[in-house]
Amino acid sequence: MDEKQLLMIPGPTMVPQSILLAGAGPMINHRGPEFKAALDECTAGLKRVFQTSGDVYILTSSGTGGLEAAVVNMLSPGDLVLSISIGVFGDRFATIAETYGAKVEKLDFPMGSAADPEKIRKRLAEDAKKQIKAVFITQNETSTGVMNDLSKIGPIVGEHGALLLVDGISSLVAMDCQMDKWRLDVVVAGSQKAFMIPPGLSFVAVGERAAAAMKQAKMPRFYFDLAQAQRYLVQGQTPWTPAVPQVFQLREGLRLLEKEGLRNCFARHARFARATREGVKALGLTLLAEESCASNAVTSVRNPEGIDGAAFRKQMREKYGVVLAGGQGVLKDAIFRIGHLGYVGEADIIATLALIGLCLKELGLKVDPAAGASAAIRALGS
Amino acid sequence: MDEKQLLMIPGPTMVPQSILLAGAGPMINHRGPEFKAALDECTAGLKRVFQTSGDVYILTSSGTGGLEAAVVNMLSPGDLVLSISIGVFGDRFATIAETYGAKVEKLDFPMGSAADPEKIRKRLAEDAKKQIKAVFITQNETSTGVMNDLSKIGPIVGEHGALLLVDGISSLVAMDCQMDKWRLDVVVAGSQKAFMIPPGLSFVAVGERAAAAMKQAKMPRFYFDLAQAQRYLVQGQTPWTPAVPQVFQLREGLRLLEKEGLRNCFARHARFARATREGVKALGLTLLAEESCASNAVTSVRNPEGIDGAAFRKQMREKYGVVLAGGQGVLKDAIFRIGHLGYVGEADIIATLALIGLCLKELGLKVDPAAGASAAIRALGS
Repeated sequence: MDEKQLLMIPGPTMVPQSILLAGAGPMINHRGPEFKAALDECTAGLKRVFQTSGDVYILTSSGTGGLEAAVVNMLSPGDLVLSISIGVFGDRFATIAETYGAKVEKLDFPMGSAADPEKIRKRLAEDAKKQIKAVFITQNETSTGVMNDLSKIGPIVGEHGALLLVDGISSLVAMDCQMDKWRLDVVVAGSQKAFMIPPGLSFVAVGERAAAAMKQAKMPRFYFDLAQAQRYLVQGQTPWTPAVPQVFQLREGLRLLEKEGLRNCFARHARFARATREGVKALGLTLLAEESCASNAVTSVRNPEGIDGAAFRKQMREKYGVVLAGGQGVLKDAIFRIGHLGYVGEADIIATLALIGLCLKELGLKVDPAAGASAAIRALGS
Repeated sequence: MDEKQLLMIPGPTMVPQSILLAGAGPMINHRGPEFKAALDECTAGLKRVFQTSGDVYILTSSGTGGLEAAVVNMLSPGDLVLSISIGVFGDRFATIAETYGAKVEKLDFPMGSAADPEKIRKRLAEDAKKQIKAVFITQNETSTGVMNDLSKIGPIVGEHGALLLVDGISSLVAMDCQMDKWRLDVVVAGSQKAFMIPPGLSFVAVGERAAAAMKQAKMPRFYFDLAQAQRYLVQGQTPWTPAVPQVFQLREGLRLLEKEGLRNCFARHARFARATREGVKALGLTLLAEESCASNAVTSVRNPEGIDGAAFRKQMREKYGVVLAGGQGVLKDAIFRIGHLGYVGEADIIATLALIGLCLKELGLKVDPAAGASAAIRALGS
């Protein structure tokens, strides 16, 4: 039983067999008609997922490459940006902008909390001279398992007039993201999250205002130049040789998603997240995130007193084949994280909670090992 | 017979079944032990292929991303570089450097010819003040099918002291590249060429002098920051989520390559290139490249008088399932190109020449359609 794994991390996520095989076909010419057909279908499908009439570019890179593309195509050196951070990934956006010469003002909220829309409104209201050119935010902070409410924050930023750049890497498909309606200007996502496909692609959606801003932006860019991507997209191509297998996998993933229905998919993620939290609490463990803003994609749990987080995750992986994530940054040794996004079913949620219970008991925690699974089952049935 | 294709373009190339399937396994954690084992094996194998004791970084990007990584990690804005170009891809290196603020001096050679080492020596000798910080060159110019002789050019640049940055995207594995012995400082390759794996990865090999230069280089970089890549490589990881399937495919590709033997692989490519050229000439067609520097990876052929290149390639693809490449840049309508790198066998070479003969005859060219295949067969047997 060496190989059987439950990959319960917040990406890369498990991949359905039909998607795995969609990437295993014979190689084709990336400048030929077969690729054009696949790219066109993917682009149309992504626009529905991002809920935008803007362009969506498919880049061969990790999500971080997509974030870099968002920054360097929208800004010029010296621009002031307001970076809203609730964890590690919020900071990444800021670091990229600083690297390319932007002036970054940070608006941090405590880890485990969401950004307070009113504090954002207040800061932007103070900016009477409109010096803030862009606002950065993550929709789902993967390092803490917290969702920001973009339906509130989007219109606030829109009123000020700054561009709103959204890290949606772990949120798209797992939760609602109404890009156009909520006035989000650029949204970045990654293939290896709720899209259920392997890593290798990032998606950058560019709204109307952002497309105009792109023409003024002076940060240097070549591989990630979206104007080039735009010139090729209309021909059904990408400027550079793309990760062809992942494009075919994306097509299959989008087909599966259309079959499930986007709203059903969001509801599934919310339901599994709730069941996971109920299971965790029933094991006597403490959630990191406030429940009002807890993520539909990933749940962060404090390592119980007296339990070594790394040893616990090692035993989970080696004995039970359940792969969990540790913490990142300052939370490295403080938490473990359960990813429940993408190709996850009820069985996976229940099994994960059951095996966490068993494993913690083996490591000496006083706990009914069935309590977590039982609570999860009840939550799923309620 | 819709699907059966001979993909005879200079990348992406055909992929062996065992490599296709190596990418279709269950997804794993990119920060876990299975990935570390694969990455470590790939890195060691790549060092043998690049014939270097330096680090080789595996990036999730096309080859162009690898070129950008080479430029931005080695140079600072304002640096003077000498860009040697014999075609479209030589120019790409220069464009990237200009984008990031380098001063680029071009040393162009006619399309179809190789760079003349003595002219490079002369230009570098004039640079008594050592203002030239780096020299760019392609080992194999994919747009014309010409190889530069790096065994001569490397030591010339080494004597001057400038860094030599090599675009080896379509050359590595198809032809010898003795990075350390020839004093090449940075060599970039791509997964979808002679490595026989799908697109999605680029490889950047960094020699000792280049590793030192990296610490002084001031061009902005984040996704392509090789210092970050270095910090993660020692832990068996990549800084950002990599294209996991392609890493497993690379491992399988390198295993196949070790079985064949690197020298045997170079010899196979040279033999197929020769047979292709003999076949082309026997059909009465004209080669673009001088034979003394003709590529082992790709053969460029002038479109015969009176034949529309695009219509010819369309008929080859739609009627016979043979995919050929057109020209690029100023050569767009002037040539077609036959890729014969990677997973190619004698049967593919012979069939391609035969079907080119048949198709050209159908399009009105006065030709014995068997002449090309016959000449190729004889060349293979000699």
